Amino acid sequence: MMNKKGSLFIVTGPSGAGKGTVLAGLSRRLSNVFYSVSATTRQPRPGEVDGKNYYFKTKEEFEGMIARGEMLEYAEYVGNYYGTPEGPVNEMLEAGNDVILEIEVQGALIVKNKRPDAILVFITPPSFDILEERLRNRGTEKEEVVKMRLEKARSECSHMDEYEYIIVNDVLDEAIQDLSSVVRAARCRSTQIDIKLV
Amino acid sequence: MMNKKGSLFIVTGPSGAGKGTVLAGLSRRLSNVFYSVSATTRQPRPGEVDGKNYYFKTKEEFEGMIARGEMLEYAEYVGNYYGTPEGPVNEMLEAGNDVILEIEVQGALIVKNKRPDAILVFITPPSFDILEERLRNRGTEKEEVVKMRLEKARSECSHMDEYEYIIVNDVLDEAIQDLSSVVRAARCRSTQIDIKLV
Repeated sequence: MMNKKGSLFIVTGPSGAGKGTVLAGLSRRLSNVFYSVSATTRQPRPGEVDGKNYYFKTKEEFEGMIARGEMLEYAEYVGNYYGTPEGPVNEMLEAGNDVILEIEVQGALIVKNKRPDAILVFITPPSFDILEERLRNRGTEKEEVVKMRLEKARSECSHMDEYEYIIVNDVLDEAIQDLSSVVRAARCRSTQIDIKLV
Repeated sequence: MMNKKGSLFIVTGPSGAGKGTVLAGLSRRLSNVFYSVSATTRQPRPGEVDGKNYYFKTKEEFEGMIARGEMLEYAEYVGNYYGTPEGPVNEMLEAGNDVILEIEVQGALIVKNKRPDAILVFITPPSFDILEERLRNRGTEKEEVVKMRLEKARSECSHMDEYEYIIVNDVLDEAIQDLSSVVRAARCRSTQIDIKLV
């Protein structure tokens, strides 16, 4: 009587916005939310599992996937390819699961263009001062890394209005509730619900 | 740094769908949700308070409001006017509150046309069999009233795909969470959030 298909969520947020923690909170609150696994040509690190952390591909394999249009988006970064294979994403959606794609602004806008049904969510810190504080409090980052991250955050945040939803991660639990609401509400959209009342 | 304006929600659902109970649950879960007060030309019943239950108007006053374009929607029903004055709705929205307008399909589609920013939510029973059971279990309705309500429900439910969201009220608490998520997610839309990061 009621069939639901999943929704594709593109989640972006600068380093220090707390994206990982908010997404972990989402997974605790809602079931049937899956994370897209990226493909890469970089070497697996110890402990990394193919198909779980990444799909590990050779350069030739990756370029073949690009050529066959199998990549939702991809980018080159310090000599390696990183990208999102569309097949596994579609399989998860067809099975009724929601899929989270955690990517940067550039990739997000490419995916939005290819798949207008994708829901773009930007996770932002409440201010750059707070972001700077969070980055410094990690204590592990050199001054120049902090400066670089802040610069990149400013650039990324300048695009947040191109996203459908903005989650301000000020109070963590509120941010988790916000994101969970966005995902849960998407499941209630009339386009997602196939109900034939009898 | 962050200004939010409210959103206008139009909620429709057939008699027996449990709309009132779901809305009451929403009010318990979220603050800053207000209900639009209708205007009517019918006589106040004992205990009804002007401006709370209804804005009680004379026929001349009501027709003046229609003539001045002050009604978001209105209808005549057994010789009386019923309608939604737009002024108080806008005041609540400007103050940052979300506003719920509980109206029937015809009025809902009129409002959607006038205010494309309105978010339409349809609350439906999981099936007509269950709706019939609920209506009969009230025990207070005559057979012909039950039949009439079922007929009307079928007609109303045929429009649910014109709504942005559909809440299936099968398990009450799930339906309340669904509606709360729709309202909370709307607060996170980038169009509603005016954030200037400093």
